[in-house]
Amino acid sequence: MQEIIKQIKHRNNSKIVLCVLDGLGGIPVKGKTELQAANSPNLDALANQSECGLHIPVMRGITPGSGAAHLGLFGYDPVRNEIGRGVLEALGLGIDIGPHDIAIRGNFATVEYKDTNPFVTDRRAGRIPTEENKRIVKKITGNIDKIGGVEVKLYSGLEHRFVVVLTFKEKVSPEFDLINDTDPQETGKSPLSPVGKNNKSERVANIVKELVEEISKILRDEEKANYILLRGFSAHPQLESYDEIYGLNACCIATYPMYKGVSKLVGMDILDIEGNTISSEVDTLKKEFGNYDFFYMHIKKTDSYGEDGNFKSKARVIEEFDGLLPEIESLNPDVIAITGDHSTPSKMKSHSWHPVPLLIYSGNCRNHKLKGFYEEECHRGELGIINSTDIMPLLLAHSGRLSKFGA
Amino acid sequence: MQEIIKQIKHRNNSKIVLCVLDGLGGIPVKGKTELQAANSPNLDALANQSECGLHIPVMRGITPGSGAAHLGLFGYDPVRNEIGRGVLEALGLGIDIGPHDIAIRGNFATVEYKDTNPFVTDRRAGRIPTEENKRIVKKITGNIDKIGGVEVKLYSGLEHRFVVVLTFKEKVSPEFDLINDTDPQETGKSPLSPVGKNNKSERVANIVKELVEEISKILRDEEKANYILLRGFSAHPQLESYDEIYGLNACCIATYPMYKGVSKLVGMDILDIEGNTISSEVDTLKKEFGNYDFFYMHIKKTDSYGEDGNFKSKARVIEEFDGLLPEIESLNPDVIAITGDHSTPSKMKSHSWHPVPLLIYSGNCRNHKLKGFYEEECHRGELGIINSTDIMPLLLAHSGRLSKFGA
Repeated sequence: MQEIIKQIKHRNNSKIVLCVLDGLGGIPVKGKTELQAANSPNLDALANQSECGLHIPVMRGITPGSGAAHLGLFGYDPVRNEIGRGVLEALGLGIDIGPHDIAIRGNFATVEYKDTNPFVTDRRAGRIPTEENKRIVKKITGNIDKIGGVEVKLYSGLEHRFVVVLTFKEKVSPEFDLINDTDPQETGKSPLSPVGKNNKSERVANIVKELVEEISKILRDEEKANYILLRGFSAHPQLESYDEIYGLNACCIATYPMYKGVSKLVGMDILDIEGNTISSEVDTLKKEFGNYDFFYMHIKKTDSYGEDGNFKSKARVIEEFDGLLPEIESLNPDVIAITGDHSTPSKMKSHSWHPVPLLIYSGNCRNHKLKGFYEEECHRGELGIINSTDIMPLLLAHSGRLSKFGA
Repeated sequence: MQEIIKQIKHRNNSKIVLCVLDGLGGIPVKGKTELQAANSPNLDALANQSECGLHIPVMRGITPGSGAAHLGLFGYDPVRNEIGRGVLEALGLGIDIGPHDIAIRGNFATVEYKDTNPFVTDRRAGRIPTEENKRIVKKITGNIDKIGGVEVKLYSGLEHRFVVVLTFKEKVSPEFDLINDTDPQETGKSPLSPVGKNNKSERVANIVKELVEEISKILRDEEKANYILLRGFSAHPQLESYDEIYGLNACCIATYPMYKGVSKLVGMDILDIEGNTISSEVDTLKKEFGNYDFFYMHIKKTDSYGEDGNFKSKARVIEEFDGLLPEIESLNPDVIAITGDHSTPSKMKSHSWHPVPLLIYSGNCRNHKLKGFYEEECHRGELGIINSTDIMPLLLAHSGRLSKFGA
């Protein structure tokens, strides 16, 4: 898909705003989904003027994580462009991951030595406090900064978790990260030795082996966190940018690190937001509206309350967004799209596979005059059920940025 | 798709019942399809609580055979995993085909010899009676049991038809069966010599050549059936099992050999049924409900009456199933799916390409409150029009057996 778009895209002065209410889709509780229950007159009025439908984030029946779901929204096939666990963990901590980086998820663990061989007795080092974690990371980074010419950085996460970033002189490729986890997944076993599946990953594995040894020496006297276990080796995914593929000068308006991180992977500028509310996001949108073509705006709390099983609060976040929608509309963007990255039904308290409501507004819409913006009406909408990766071509089409395909 | 499912599937204690009413879909006669005309209050009530839609067995416009259609329902791409004609014919006769087997469809034929060369005068040996066929097969198998270390078995079909099964010491692969039919398709011509397209099939072709010669000697004095013509060389398809892909301990409740055969190919246990009715199938389901995760139940007569053009009887089979549905529901399976493998509209007296009504019931459904279970209402349903291969991921999702894709 992106290959075709690249060939037929052209630039113009149009503006596209994509609002992603995380986990927006629901299933009914007492006969209504969150979108149905919410009092959202502005969304309903816009749906009545727009093309609506539902999108499948990855595949029928597949419940996506946030990274995969966002790749789909951004038009990148989430199966072929899977972002590794290490990179996602790093993005979630707000760590910048660049084209030269491999990111790895780490646990501090407790081992006992028999002769000189370590055996894991606690895979999470008793879930040491985050402050302890920070002290230990400082101790390590004070002693190690490079191994075999490769820069090594450690970043504390919560409790026993941390992230390792290896920075190479050259750009990394997917061949670099074909390395087994060193976490044996069971206590009583020895940590596994990292082994690469090809020349490039073998080189990385050797660096990691040395790193694990060095760190085990530094941590030898720690009571609990005396070893590290590593998982999810993953190279920077080297995605082509929004500018290269779509010809869009794009920016991200989001408050959570993970979403800023994925946006950065596709070449969006990350905008500063004063505050933590939807209202402050809309303020940023207004302020920067002259400076970009494409605005990705992320609203987190619909998902958080869905995960909590808090139906009413999820509906209330929708209402809060609805109240601010007129301010977005008053900017007169050429295209407004409103959707979720996936469904998070409060009833299930988790992400789900259910298709996600989608609204696309522009001056060139068919019009089924929907009664409102919710799952069943969207199903009656103009777009039907589409793949998430179809959304970007539609937004470009509605903004007049695609030439004819073929003569 | 199955590659992804394999990675994210996990086991739990849920139960899934998939009821396949063969050839279920129809087209209207006097304004109603068979499903619409049938008085089926239980199906209608369940549809009102379920997610419904329609599925495309293979591709738009493609009318599938039963083997291909069932592969799709079972989640195996029916184009990439085509089951050979020989294997399908064998399964239809209730012959067990294993990973070491190649199956071939055979016709007894009449040839005349000019010098020593045979020329086909009747490709079906005057459609000899089945009893004659049995006598001749016995005569052959009394004289041949192995050629070149490969076991040879013949099985009588109806009239002039039979099946040959070659059993190798090693597992066969798709490379083994690239051999031309020996049937020249016209009288007056000589049977064709079997030729392989690679080393492996060349070896098989040589065995078959010897087999044909041996049999022609044994049948030399037969009045009509004095030669054999062979078609549809096909190796066991070596499909990964339900257990390997989906983590499901699955069984098949069916009365016809063909459906048991395809189920066996995907690793299902074939359950005994006392009797030949839908009611006896439901009895088996009840009896074995504690022993499996996944129950595939096949109802044949909807298709048979469709093929006969018998609209009323097809509707009556739907009513018979409807009457038994409460017994299935009373087992409280976590997921109930009801569909067909393809459409068999009575009006057409044949299989067709029309999308097939589909119902999926679980505790996590969206709900459009359909008025009933029939084609047009299903089109209004939550699922829209999907591929048959999407059904298995949906059933696994609804039963809580899939983890998130991506973090």
